[in-house]
Amino acid sequence: MSPINAQWRLAARPVGLPKPSDWEYVEEPAPAPSDGQFSVQLEYLSLDPAMRGWMNEGRSYVPPVGIGEVMRAGGLGRVIESRHPDYAVGELVSGVFGVQRYALSDGNGVNRVDTTLAPAPVHLGALGMTGLTAYFGLLDIGRPESGQTVVVSCAAGAVGSVAGQIARIKGCRAVGIAGGPEKCEWLTEELGFDAAVDYKAGGVRAQLREHTPDGVDVYFDNVGGEILDEVLRRLARGARVVICGAISQYNADQPPKGPANYMQLLVMRASMTGFLVFDFARRYPEGVAQLAQWLQSGELHSREDVVSGGLDKFPEVFLMLFRGENTGKLILQLTEEDA
Amino acid sequence: MSPINAQWRLAARPVGLPKPSDWEYVEEPAPAPSDGQFSVQLEYLSLDPAMRGWMNEGRSYVPPVGIGEVMRAGGLGRVIESRHPDYAVGELVSGVFGVQRYALSDGNGVNRVDTTLAPAPVHLGALGMTGLTAYFGLLDIGRPESGQTVVVSCAAGAVGSVAGQIARIKGCRAVGIAGGPEKCEWLTEELGFDAAVDYKAGGVRAQLREHTPDGVDVYFDNVGGEILDEVLRRLARGARVVICGAISQYNADQPPKGPANYMQLLVMRASMTGFLVFDFARRYPEGVAQLAQWLQSGELHSREDVVSGGLDKFPEVFLMLFRGENTGKLILQLTEEDA
Repeated sequence: MSPINAQWRLAARPVGLPKPSDWEYVEEPAPAPSDGQFSVQLEYLSLDPAMRGWMNEGRSYVPPVGIGEVMRAGGLGRVIESRHPDYAVGELVSGVFGVQRYALSDGNGVNRVDTTLAPAPVHLGALGMTGLTAYFGLLDIGRPESGQTVVVSCAAGAVGSVAGQIARIKGCRAVGIAGGPEKCEWLTEELGFDAAVDYKAGGVRAQLREHTPDGVDVYFDNVGGEILDEVLRRLARGARVVICGAISQYNADQPPKGPANYMQLLVMRASMTGFLVFDFARRYPEGVAQLAQWLQSGELHSREDVVSGGLDKFPEVFLMLFRGENTGKLILQLTEEDA
Repeated sequence: MSPINAQWRLAARPVGLPKPSDWEYVEEPAPAPSDGQFSVQLEYLSLDPAMRGWMNEGRSYVPPVGIGEVMRAGGLGRVIESRHPDYAVGELVSGVFGVQRYALSDGNGVNRVDTTLAPAPVHLGALGMTGLTAYFGLLDIGRPESGQTVVVSCAAGAVGSVAGQIARIKGCRAVGIAGGPEKCEWLTEELGFDAAVDYKAGGVRAQLREHTPDGVDVYFDNVGGEILDEVLRRLARGARVVICGAISQYNADQPPKGPANYMQLLVMRASMTGFLVFDFARRYPEGVAQLAQWLQSGELHSREDVVSGGLDKFPEVFLMLFRGENTGKLILQLTEEDA
């Protein structure tokens, strides 16, 4: 007897924040693996701002999720049945398994999870795509040098909190932009950021001026919109702006707002560069090894905001990302195991 | 007896296109050179879109021209009196001499003009800052490779026409964006561009799609605004956008419009980089030598749009730049010599 799978499928392309009617909840028997496949019971779902982009029509770096298809998402779970020579029942694996309880996989894009390095959820955070995005984006695209000033937006988010810490580890002045005093205090008191800008407190321009007296050498941007424009005003000569995301624009029901101050790139002989972590796939082992070492030495802190309650809660928990309600990596826990 | 100098001074910071009341015309005796100085009688004035930026308040790569100061401009003229050991009466020189008939100089930033290489006006065009801007901007920032597609905006302008030709010389597919059938025909028939997009004919998106079937590897942007957004939609993976200028925004009486499609930088792992030719000053001799060689071999064509009529006409001739009325390098001739 197959277990009953449950899935969240995309029912409609959202305008603005996804509404309940944009999703369809489906239960049906989980299919058994064919030759060369294995079944995974998902334990944790990775909830990421990029998922909102995958719901839109249009040219992007991956095809959009089709209407009626299971929503794409990273996840972590245990192999429960296998007809694949390399994966045995009981192994813990991560991959893009979708928003569902059970997934079939042929092993493509799947990584084994070593819980002796860190607890399972950390493998979706600092040791997963999140950490690797921060690692390659900051170091390879931003190229910060010791003593330079690195500003990170969504600094209390999954990627931003790791990027800012790596900047600090590399001897930079790390300045995080986050919403509210609690997040800002977490950045400076627990993660070792040199300063935090509370965008909810207003006066972002004055706060930035105060905390970046020598200008901004590297800006790791996850937010876009007005904050990007404010940081462009503070660029130092030769600055690098790393475009990792633009969460402020993902749910806009109007055309996206471009950075009006982009001519500061000319004034300051600066660059703005987009990247995707997937392009660094060959170097993931290097990134994971370094991130794991920093975690173990205590130089890097990983925080997972694990929400329990199972798959039912997915549509609501997903929205926490866009309301600034998570601190660190947002994860939906599907089972009570390994909690 | 000193000759009578005439100057155009900045009277007010323009809102939108400069009006006559933004300028003040002054005549007064030309001062004699002190020790270490020489006097230049200007023969040609270089009229450049960047001058509009110098009229604005605010942080930029040079201080703004002050109210009451002579308008800043490049020019070319003859030494008529000298108390400088390195400059003799009769020598032809170029430099930032200002919008006036006679200028004093201490030699700082001054170059000798060799008319055996090319006629005097070319030294303000393809052999001057214009050509060097195209040369370093395209080759060092854009880094085009043979076989790639290079798109240039304001392609019939001074810098754009040289940038596109260098792209062609380097084995690239050169596509120019210009206004009107005459300019477009000049690009393809005389300068050897592979294709031209007439933005005045409408349908820029469809024209771009037709002429950049493999996407855009390098975009050399002089215009900003909607054209920049359209080209961003066409970027190829790993594309380089070179920010040289944004003439569409210089006279806007509203806040500048940022590139709404900038997230294509992420989708395409592309970069957008600003530059200033002044940063390449050490390498000017290399650039001039290469540009002169291309001119002499006939691979590179320089076109100067020389308007005669003297200094009186400056405010009106300057506006030609922003009305798209010049083809090639816009120059105001101040004297009848060397015409």
